[in-house]
Amino acid sequence: MDMKNAIAKLKEVDDKSHAITHASALIQWDAATRAPKNSVEGRARTLSTLTGEYYMTLVNDEFNKILSYLEENKKELDYITTRKVEEYRIEYDKIAKIPVNVVKEYSEAQAKASAAWEEAKNKRDFSIFAPHLEKVIDYNKKFISYRGYTKHPYNTLLGDYERGLTTEDLDEFFSELKNTIVPLVNRINKSNVKINTEFTKKHYPSKEQDKLSKQLLHIIGFNMDSGLIAESEHPFTTNFNRNDVRITTHYFENDLLPALYSTLHEGGHAIYEQNIDEELEFTQLCGGTSMGIHESQSRFFENIVGRSYPFIEYIFPIIQKAFPENLQDVTSEDLYLAANKSELSLIRIDADELTYSLHIMIRYEIEKLLFENKILVEDLPEIWNQKYKEYMGLTPKNDAEGILQDVHWSEGLFGYFPSYALGNAYASQFKNTMEKSINIDEDLRNGNLENIRKWLYENVHKYGKLLTPKEIIKKATNEPLNAKYYTAYLEEKYSKIYDL
Amino acid sequence: MDMKNAIAKLKEVDDKSHAITHASALIQWDAATRAPKNSVEGRARTLSTLTGEYYMTLVNDEFNKILSYLEENKKELDYITTRKVEEYRIEYDKIAKIPVNVVKEYSEAQAKASAAWEEAKNKRDFSIFAPHLEKVIDYNKKFISYRGYTKHPYNTLLGDYERGLTTEDLDEFFSELKNTIVPLVNRINKSNVKINTEFTKKHYPSKEQDKLSKQLLHIIGFNMDSGLIAESEHPFTTNFNRNDVRITTHYFENDLLPALYSTLHEGGHAIYEQNIDEELEFTQLCGGTSMGIHESQSRFFENIVGRSYPFIEYIFPIIQKAFPENLQDVTSEDLYLAANKSELSLIRIDADELTYSLHIMIRYEIEKLLFENKILVEDLPEIWNQKYKEYMGLTPKNDAEGILQDVHWSEGLFGYFPSYALGNAYASQFKNTMEKSINIDEDLRNGNLENIRKWLYENVHKYGKLLTPKEIIKKATNEPLNAKYYTAYLEEKYSKIYDL
Repeated sequence: MDMKNAIAKLKEVDDKSHAITHASALIQWDAATRAPKNSVEGRARTLSTLTGEYYMTLVNDEFNKILSYLEENKKELDYITTRKVEEYRIEYDKIAKIPVNVVKEYSEAQAKASAAWEEAKNKRDFSIFAPHLEKVIDYNKKFISYRGYTKHPYNTLLGDYERGLTTEDLDEFFSELKNTIVPLVNRINKSNVKINTEFTKKHYPSKEQDKLSKQLLHIIGFNMDSGLIAESEHPFTTNFNRNDVRITTHYFENDLLPALYSTLHEGGHAIYEQNIDEELEFTQLCGGTSMGIHESQSRFFENIVGRSYPFIEYIFPIIQKAFPENLQDVTSEDLYLAANKSELSLIRIDADELTYSLHIMIRYEIEKLLFENKILVEDLPEIWNQKYKEYMGLTPKNDAEGILQDVHWSEGLFGYFPSYALGNAYASQFKNTMEKSINIDEDLRNGNLENIRKWLYENVHKYGKLLTPKEIIKKATNEPLNAKYYTAYLEEKYSKIYDL
Repeated sequence: MDMKNAIAKLKEVDDKSHAITHASALIQWDAATRAPKNSVEGRARTLSTLTGEYYMTLVNDEFNKILSYLEENKKELDYITTRKVEEYRIEYDKIAKIPVNVVKEYSEAQAKASAAWEEAKNKRDFSIFAPHLEKVIDYNKKFISYRGYTKHPYNTLLGDYERGLTTEDLDEFFSELKNTIVPLVNRINKSNVKINTEFTKKHYPSKEQDKLSKQLLHIIGFNMDSGLIAESEHPFTTNFNRNDVRITTHYFENDLLPALYSTLHEGGHAIYEQNIDEELEFTQLCGGTSMGIHESQSRFFENIVGRSYPFIEYIFPIIQKAFPENLQDVTSEDLYLAANKSELSLIRIDADELTYSLHIMIRYEIEKLLFENKILVEDLPEIWNQKYKEYMGLTPKNDAEGILQDVHWSEGLFGYFPSYALGNAYASQFKNTMEKSINIDEDLRNGNLENIRKWLYENVHKYGKLLTPKEIIKKATNEPLNAKYYTAYLEEKYSKIYDL
């Protein structure tokens, strides 16, 4: 083994793992946006084979030796290669412990669970999804037992999305949020301010919403030559490389707001991916550094930009022009209030900025219980409904607006939800620092997002996975993640809106 | 080595080669139908890596030994496995002679050539495409030199699409066609029958054409649960497995006919793929047996069904309902004549059934010259235009309606065009036999394609690659391919239409 060989082999693994990831992501995107009904089985087979290939590419003695060689000769490596080796080692340790046949079986189970989830949601019947969900959970428990855990089994999964994150961290984090959100919600309940949202519930044709989505994406800086938008059951972002980043949304013809804000949300994810440094392209490092940081970008564009008064002032005439009849007597102030109306609700993706984290807490608590083996899959709808009663005072009418509302579990994404709440906190902390050098309100009022995007590029986007989340927040804001910026932001914003 | 191991390994190669083919085909489908502009490079890289993986899966000592073992123990194999081994051996011999790095380079060159062709066609400028085309041709010449050839270098490429086909066969075949078509065209030129096509050139909105395409696909028996239709620059069919077969069309808003007939054409390809026996699913044998037989199915649905009087009688009211204003004074007889108007023309895909083979002859002659090293790429537009002058008496106004009109060369498909003419001949021969047991005209007049599809299923579709083209035509019609059924069909049809 010499350095030249090792580097060449590393590039080979980069190319192959990248190609497999690209192909798998496209197959999944296609499945969500337009694949025919009977394509499920063939897709599951191919994804399973590709997953097996990905595994074989990374988990083999030769590659292990190459990683070890590079680790031993770390001093000779440039910074990018050093980080690549670190990431490959983590990935290696994560998957090498799981036998290849289990990985392949899991991929097939996942694909079938996704199809079952969609059917179950359409038919509002959890029992269609339950046996598939149970399998997916069992596989994840198996993975934890293969991989081991520190303190709590769930920590292993949490760490996949936010390195080093533990149930202890989250218990504390959510308790801080709770201490702000619950009293705020109670005060809002007693407020005399009543917000009108009737005009948002008129008939908004998909075609016009689609045009509007594209205009909004243009305003926030999504590059349409390096990405596209389509429709799917549940909005998501996927990226094959920095020049092919795709988002989906879902148009509801009886509601203006969901697609509008899901487009801004996914747009934020996409802008992050499109702006990672070119130097990292086609390597393992070309991707968001963690789910939490990713969510900070989507939340930034959805909430801090998209639900701010000055930005709504800017976009309101554009929206009004798209739906002149529906919005002729409406003002930008009306839209601002409607987009920020806070109320306890059943559907996470439609939740307002304030109560959103309550939805996440419910999911966090349920996932924790699942991986403590304290609850059964068949009891999930009941447990879900109990928690919603407790936190929201509301009960879902059916499974589709309850336990079946999210796509995540069907894809095996456990430990992912907390990222959404972390994202809000990261975003507020970024905003706090950004404000010291940029007049955010003025820029938004003019629809000029260049300074904001440049700040995010310089402090977050360009690094991809070159810096860890901890390094990014520290470098950008001079301190570690601290929930106080988020709670202060909520306090200030909602006190004004509800005249508290 | 024992039989159990060898069979297991064969299945592994089936799975892996199938997954790679599925992924690559989806990436290409996506590229043609909606990928963003800047995605070219990333796609080329991934396709190149996947092509390399496909190569490595098939070309290795272990697999060679397994094939040899199975060949030596042929007596123990069932028929499906025997045929699989035969196909793998042919594929192995075809690609093992080409070094893997050349295969990968070629895949990248191909992807870039496709993008350049699209740009060149849009800008009507062959010079944008020329350097890429030259590379693709040089690679194909290199392949021939690696693989060797019998009698004529072009034979090696011809055989890839129709096993055993030679320039000698084709020189004779085309000369027979010429002997019928050229005199027929001359008689038509002198005919007093003048066909009106004005009503087909009105404004036909894409959206309505799209709806109509889906209705037609339903009528001919395309299964929408196992496939879909989208729009692309050039119509094509792709299949990931028998339950996911996709076609594209291209809507011209100023012309009713092109999309209508390209939909029927691609629909024919797709129905073939959807109806291959389930037993062959996910194996190398699950696909059309040759390009010629494939084209026989697309031509069958496009021409023998789609351009027949009884079928047009059946679909005319449906088309009229889709475009009531354009077609209020039109009859099914008018549409029949317009769809069968024969005239010398510049664009292959818009050509009528009679002159179509002349377009193919031009391409065949040019490809033959290219692989005889008798002409240069830079001279192609001139040579193209000369041949069109000679055969058609017409000269393209620009490269887009001349040398750049077809997608094939950008994808490296040389030796493919003759399949189109063979397909016509196969289709007529099938029809001739089918008529002995089925009243085709009556069934078409009632829009009932069940008997026809069943005949095609029993005699062609279900076999996939289990039978060779020669076996299929012999089994189905009791004789080898014979051009006389096609020439007789043309004679009879056009004599009636033009009152000759």
